Amino acid sequence: MKTLQDLFEDMLKDIYYAEKKILKELPKMAKKASDPELKMAFESHLGETEGQVERLEQVFKLIDKPAKGKKCPAIEGIAEEAAEIMEEAENDEVRDAGLIAAAQAVEHYEMARYGTMVEWARQLGHTKVVKLLEETLKQEKGADAKLTKLAESGINEQALAA
Amino acid sequence: MKTLQDLFEDMLKDIYYAEKKILKELPKMAKKASDPELKMAFESHLGETEGQVERLEQVFKLIDKPAKGKKCPAIEGIAEEAAEIMEEAENDEVRDAGLIAAAQAVEHYEMARYGTMVEWARQLGHTKVVKLLEETLKQEKGADAKLTKLAESGINEQALAA
Repeated sequence: MKTLQDLFEDMLKDIYYAEKKILKELPKMAKKASDPELKMAFESHLGETEGQVERLEQVFKLIDKPAKGKKCPAIEGIAEEAAEIMEEAENDEVRDAGLIAAAQAVEHYEMARYGTMVEWARQLGHTKVVKLLEETLKQEKGADAKLTKLAESGINEQALAA
Repeated sequence: MKTLQDLFEDMLKDIYYAEKKILKELPKMAKKASDPELKMAFESHLGETEGQVERLEQVFKLIDKPAKGKKCPAIEGIAEEAAEIMEEAENDEVRDAGLIAAAQAVEHYEMARYGTMVEWARQLGHTKVVKLLEETLKQEKGADAKLTKLAESGINEQALAA
């Protein structure tokens, strides 16, 4: 990798792989969630994620590259921890609390990557790309804030009583 | 895992493992960094990380458990991506830009985990633990903000010109 453009393309493939992984994981998380608000949050974020994948495909088009993923060990690791929580939780309340934590780790990974890519795209002068990625970054921050609210609500207190 | 306390202890072991991994990775990143400000940022965050490990050991003590790590696949994946950037970058400027991105992925992982643990500790009534973890969370946010500033500064523009 010789230029910022190379780095940008590499990270674009990384996050494209990650988003597609999340598309596969979110329905499992929604299914495992017991609290109806949490279930709904996962389902609505699934819809957002579909839009985010499409936006990434637009970015590939704008920089004139084929949309291609590249294995992202970070999201694999985060997903592995999420799967572990789903397996090991012995009741609905604990599982819900663990699912929120897992989803927030995913959101934070995405915030880090989109934050970096917005900055790189800006420096590379890819104005349209910046706009697309900023839209997704805003959604990820919103999803994380929603999960924080759920974590602070009654869900964990039920886990406490369990 | 049956209770929020079980979840909390499990995540405490996860982040303890992660912090120790970061203690090993930061000196490599500082060594590879070319920009003096970036090098200094990694070195100063190494000092902070040592304090964070100590704080986690205090938390283990407060909840009367032995300080023990548990393999954290997420940090392994993030570190793998960082190592890849260090290997594949063909010049100092691109390597620096990639190192900032890698470090921000680490910071975001930690922000997610400490954010969750602060909330869980609060609900569990571990007042002293909350204070310790909040102190670390504040440092991680500060480290991330410093990296954002560096990313927005001249470092990437040098990569652009490279």
